[in-house]
Amino acid sequence: MEYNYNLALIGFGNVNRTLAEIIQRDGNVLAQELGFTLRVTAITDLRFGSVVNPDGVDLDRALALGAGETFAVLDGGQETCNNQEIITSDAADIIVEATFTNPEDGQPALSHVRWGLESGKSVCTTNKGPAAFAARELSDLAAKNGVRFECEGAVMSGTPVLRLATGPMKGVGVRGFSGILNGTSNHVFTRMESGLSQGDAITEAQELGYAEADPTADIGGSDVRLKVTLLANELWGTELTTKDVPTQGITSITHEKIEEASAQGAHWKLIGQAQRDAAGNITASVGPQMLPSDHPLAGISGATNAVMFDTKYLGPVTISGPGAGREETAYALLSDIVAIDGFYRSQ
Amino acid sequence: MEYNYNLALIGFGNVNRTLAEIIQRDGNVLAQELGFTLRVTAITDLRFGSVVNPDGVDLDRALALGAGETFAVLDGGQETCNNQEIITSDAADIIVEATFTNPEDGQPALSHVRWGLESGKSVCTTNKGPAAFAARELSDLAAKNGVRFECEGAVMSGTPVLRLATGPMKGVGVRGFSGILNGTSNHVFTRMESGLSQGDAITEAQELGYAEADPTADIGGSDVRLKVTLLANELWGTELTTKDVPTQGITSITHEKIEEASAQGAHWKLIGQAQRDAAGNITASVGPQMLPSDHPLAGISGATNAVMFDTKYLGPVTISGPGAGREETAYALLSDIVAIDGFYRSQ
Repeated sequence: MEYNYNLALIGFGNVNRTLAEIIQRDGNVLAQELGFTLRVTAITDLRFGSVVNPDGVDLDRALALGAGETFAVLDGGQETCNNQEIITSDAADIIVEATFTNPEDGQPALSHVRWGLESGKSVCTTNKGPAAFAARELSDLAAKNGVRFECEGAVMSGTPVLRLATGPMKGVGVRGFSGILNGTSNHVFTRMESGLSQGDAITEAQELGYAEADPTADIGGSDVRLKVTLLANELWGTELTTKDVPTQGITSITHEKIEEASAQGAHWKLIGQAQRDAAGNITASVGPQMLPSDHPLAGISGATNAVMFDTKYLGPVTISGPGAGREETAYALLSDIVAIDGFYRSQ
Repeated sequence: MEYNYNLALIGFGNVNRTLAEIIQRDGNVLAQELGFTLRVTAITDLRFGSVVNPDGVDLDRALALGAGETFAVLDGGQETCNNQEIITSDAADIIVEATFTNPEDGQPALSHVRWGLESGKSVCTTNKGPAAFAARELSDLAAKNGVRFECEGAVMSGTPVLRLATGPMKGVGVRGFSGILNGTSNHVFTRMESGLSQGDAITEAQELGYAEADPTADIGGSDVRLKVTLLANELWGTELTTKDVPTQGITSITHEKIEEASAQGAHWKLIGQAQRDAAGNITASVGPQMLPSDHPLAGISGATNAVMFDTKYLGPVTISGPGAGREETAYALLSDIVAIDGFYRSQ
């Protein structure tokens, strides 16, 4: 049986634009493999305004808008952007949230997710805020409304970390995890091993597009802290907050320390980790660690990310893959939609 | 809602014995997490005979049988082992197959799986033979009978390779894979890097329990060939046979070649790989490859296994974990049962 889902794209930046391109380019191939078709029936964006079209938004035109143009030039479009109105309307079945998140409270992404779930729509997001600040509230809200909340892209873009742990590894007994969860800081360490200063390596990461213009969250560890909080809460159903995660960045790791490690075949890595003890208490932290060469995370270099799960039945299981990127993050949303589709089929 | 599944354990060697121990020891904890209980209602074994008990086989006694004892001492037990009769009877809901497999034709495991599916039971197996020789036949047979065939343990024991690719990575576009799929040969290379001769390293692998008494299948590549065939067929629904996979073992890799590689920071690995081109044609092979230090599989050492998937949307995604072991392989069966449970709930 073939299903069709109408999507509302909330935010039309790199990620949702790339998802729109994938739907345009690969939609037919994906429909054959996945058993469902996707149609974008609404888009909102602070810059472009909003557009609602039950027959499907003209994505070619939406993607080709020039400087200063807005969705007002499209059928069903207007200059203003009212996220709440469109998310809570019947314009779409699934809300695809890719705006931004304030590291202090998860907004505005958190409100977008709440509005969607409260109005009976499944929601997926690439933002860390919603699950980092309100994982249990949102999963309860989804359950109450008979819908799903998915956020695979919040950790390691489309590399399936959350769904690996909660899907194929169900029942394995995850006792803890350690991860390289920030591509910028990992790239900086890798390049320092080749002799670059930390400052030059950060500049290079910015030039390569890995680091933000303000790399504080990458270098200082707060980006990893959000991901550790989110991953722990998704894994164990806990209500950890970022305050529970003591965090140290990478600035204390000097060139001398990198050289000392290299002489032993070891590597410095910014590690985010959490463990759960037998009583269910969680201990989590973020900070630089020197890993011996045979550690499963020691060889993860450059912008690649990885998580090693420590499990009861399998011991360490490690997944590595991209941690960022336009297409990689757009795929995260597609994989969320696959999970939402699986949920609807199981009802 | 809580489900209960009655299991028939076919074969009572290390793996199914360990599964029985896990059910005894952890069954209550697992039931809470997984939402189903497990009861062993039948066991067959060439050595121990067979036992059928609708109220549950006395696992403590079954596990404690002394030398020369058979299941005849248990309620519902007898000295003889009739696999076909028990598999096709109504003694169980799920057939848990862990006997052995002939690398030429997949028997007797293949027959056990067929009998189970034909008689309307879901089947899981740790044997490579059934999916390597008859993946499509068995998945068609399962679909026709409204049941499932699962074999996660056939590749990398309980490390979820098959279900990672077909579950959380659905739609990602797997174009190919390269894997380290045999712990013995990988251990041998790792130890040769420490200066051991190949012969001594093989003896050590046997002493550690990684290698079979006859290590031909490990060292000669035929174990990896079966796994490559199986993985390709599961991923792409093809009907590749082992004859389609040119295979070379590790004996040609001398100590000199290992040293040459080490001098460049590179590592020799026995790689099983397959690629699918745009027309759907598969090219597969097994053989030693020298990997540069920054290759995702270069750092996989000792008995650890790993598969790197080359994907359209994510580029390389690598999973590594145990490739063998009693508890690790027993968990593979448990994860198969979780998948079977998910299937029944979605009906």
